[in-house]
Amino acid sequence: MAMVKRVEYETATPEVRAVFDDIMATRKTDWINNFWKVLASHPPTMMRMWENVKQVMAPGALDPLTKEMIYVAVSVTNNCEYCIHSHTAAARAKGMTDAQLAELLAVVGLANDTNRLANGYRIPVDPQFLPEHR
Amino acid sequence: MAMVKRVEYETATPEVRAVFDDIMATRKTDWINNFWKVLASHPPTMMRMWENVKQVMAPGALDPLTKEMIYVAVSVTNNCEYCIHSHTAAARAKGMTDAQLAELLAVVGLANDTNRLANGYRIPVDPQFLPEHR
Amino acid sequence: MAMVKRVEYETATPEVRAVFDDIMATRKTDWINNFWKVLASHPPTMMRMWENVKQVMAPGALDPLTKEMIYVAVSVTNNCEYCIHSHTAAARAKGMTDAQLAELLAVVGLANDTNRLANGYRIPVDPQFLPEHR
Amino acid sequence: MAMVKRVEYETATPEVRAVFDDIMATRKTDWINNFWKVLASHPPTMMRMWENVKQVMAPGALDPLTKEMIYVAVSVTNNCEYCIHSHTAAARAKGMTDAQLAELLAVVGLANDTNRLANGYRIPVDPQFLPEHR
Amino acid sequence: MAMVKRVEYETATPEVRAVFDDIMATRKTDWINNFWKVLASHPPTMMRMWENVKQVMAPGALDPLTKEMIYVAVSVTNNCEYCIHSHTAAARAKGMTDAQLAELLAVVGLANDTNRLANGYRIPVDPQFLPEHR
Amino acid sequence: MAMVKRVEYETATPEVRAVFDDIMATRKTDWINNFWKVLASHPPTMMRMWENVKQVMAPGALDPLTKEMIYVAVSVTNNCEYCIHSHTAAARAKGMTDAQLAELLAVVGLANDTNRLANGYRIPVDPQFLPEHR
Repeated sequence: MAMVKRVEYETATPEVRAVFDDIMATRKTDWINNFWKVLASHPPTMMRMWENVKQVMAPGALDPLTKEMIYVAVSVTNNCEYCIHSHTAAARAKGMTDAQLAELLAVVGLANDTNRLANGYRIPVDPQFLPEHR
Repeated sequence: MAMVKRVEYETATPEVRAVFDDIMATRKTDWINNFWKVLASHPPTMMRMWENVKQVMAPGALDPLTKEMIYVAVSVTNNCEYCIHSHTAAARAKGMTDAQLAELLAVVGLANDTNRLANGYRIPVDPQFLPEHR
Repeated sequence: MAMVKRVEYETATPEVRAVFDDIMATRKTDWINNFWKVLASHPPTMMRMWENVKQVMAPGALDPLTKEMIYVAVSVTNNCEYCIHSHTAAARAKGMTDAQLAELLAVVGLANDTNRLANGYRIPVDPQFLPEHR
Repeated sequence: MAMVKRVEYETATPEVRAVFDDIMATRKTDWINNFWKVLASHPPTMMRMWENVKQVMAPGALDPLTKEMIYVAVSVTNNCEYCIHSHTAAARAKGMTDAQLAELLAVVGLANDTNRLANGYRIPVDPQFLPEHR
Repeated sequence: MAMVKRVEYETATPEVRAVFDDIMATRKTDWINNFWKVLASHPPTMMRMWENVKQVMAPGALDPLTKEMIYVAVSVTNNCEYCIHSHTAAARAKGMTDAQLAELLAVVGLANDTNRLANGYRIPVDPQFLPEHR
Repeated sequence: MAMVKRVEYETATPEVRAVFDDIMATRKTDWINNFWKVLASHPPTMMRMWENVKQVMAPGALDPLTKEMIYVAVSVTNNCEYCIHSHTAAARAKGMTDAQLAELLAVVGLANDTNRLANGYRIPVDPQFLPEHR
């Protein structure tokens, strides 16, 4: 059970229901996942977070699948079970194959490894990598 | 200064120099960055990590730029200064634009936010997201 | 099941039972939670940690509810399921409302987001923020 | 140097300058810190993040000082140097004393400790702590 | 259920079965744990990771038990449930006692605490600790 | 500069000076590092943390060098610059060789990698690893 009561579509206030409708219309789905039902317990958070998600995850300079894979990479690094499942499912729905998932996780694992080698050895940044070098 | 002495190309043993040569040939560059110079202080680690990087970062089901951006996403989440600089530079060298960097960081930030909302509210995973549902 | 056997009040040694008694007296409760039963498997750790908790969580320059909310903020950031549940329950027992929980989690989420924007963009600290500026 | 060029007030576009003005008016200050100058390099991110900060950090069920201290707790746990400095300075400006800072950091440290004891021992959550128990 | 289908010994390809055989021979066991069954869904990852584990965890300048305890320390800090269980079991199989586990977790907890005190107070590194001081 | 003023031995109160003396006597050194000088700004924290460090890091079921290496493993995973330097120096003072440091960091890196593979693939814990199986 979540920390607070989930809000179901049927019993939602009109303003929350409008966000539920926008989520389903934007995603072309006919159901609402628990993340939004739980956030709906505090409408200002729900409305604010939906504005964030809608803007950030929209197609732009990066395509939606790439964005979902970046989302998975962060969620795996932080070990957020809910987000790993929801965004892996979203990435698969956008076309991610088993081979792409395997390569994504391989990069995530390797980056977590070399991050610690760089930190543990206190490796100084090469001047060639600094933004002023561009 | 790093925790251990860096190994320079000129004074490297033949086996380490061979890895330096392979790194430069694979990357089509004419210099070696500090990460490899420091790891060369322990040749088994250097050789092992280079095999990992060469295999994982090669083009495959994911293209090299996507892989670099995933690397940046992990490094930013963990706050590894060296890796943020080196992999942002690598992503730029592979064509990442300022707009793509901005969207990448926006997704990384948002994922770090919603990871905590999901964890803090203990949101149960929707059955529709589970792998057995596919 | 925990990694080690929990120690129950009935079968505890006198020295462990004295800590159990102090925990219940300090908290004005009549039961011991699993955290202390598990730690009691190694009495030096149990006694040391109870001294820490008793000192750090006592009313002082910060009130007990604020301290509990800070505890929740850390536990959510680290995704410690046990600690999220135990300290959210403790904060509610000290008066935290649903609205306060929602705002607490909103701040935690946002801070996790902007932490990564600051790190990813490598934003230099403004001199006005440094302690020597005070 | 940051990853991208900072935008200064004098050379900002009207839409970015309007956000700068709103930041200074809301905070009753006469300068803009680097966080917003860097984010201004990507106006959609800057405008979106300012809306988030303005809503989340406004007085509500929690007072502004408590919110700043929660922000510091997260930033310290994640080790974001920029955010530790900027939000500690903000908390001090809202009245945080040295004693309160010391107690805040003591709670943050202790929570990071017990989070690992709970995780390492795999301590099962007591049913009394679950939300359904309320 | 894992994100991908586990590969069982009976239905594995010859190349995957050869790795399974090497894992069991190296560890002197007669069963394969889920980690390798899941990784076997992507043979290049499985073979690469086994090479890493075999090299890194072999006796060397550090003995195998010390290596397992370091593995546990990292896994507890990151809260990886699978790895905490598998490497605590491995450390016990190599002789770790309950008292050693308790001291290991006490150090892990304390280090997570003082890491945040050092970061939160922004304590400058003493020159005596720098590698150039040796 | 640290967030608060460091306390120097010469100007310390008698109670703080007594802790400084105990630190130097216990460690057989003739100087105090910045960690304790900064913590001395809040004597209850300083005295409490020194009791923790003295108890946890004393020889016991684990030897002091193993404890220092576990401390380094945690500090590297969390990227605490101060703690990486201070505890690597302490481990070297207790006899850690370059080869041992290299193997320690290799294990830390690998564990950070496999932690994410286990989390990303959501690998179920094998019953053989559970404590009830012992």
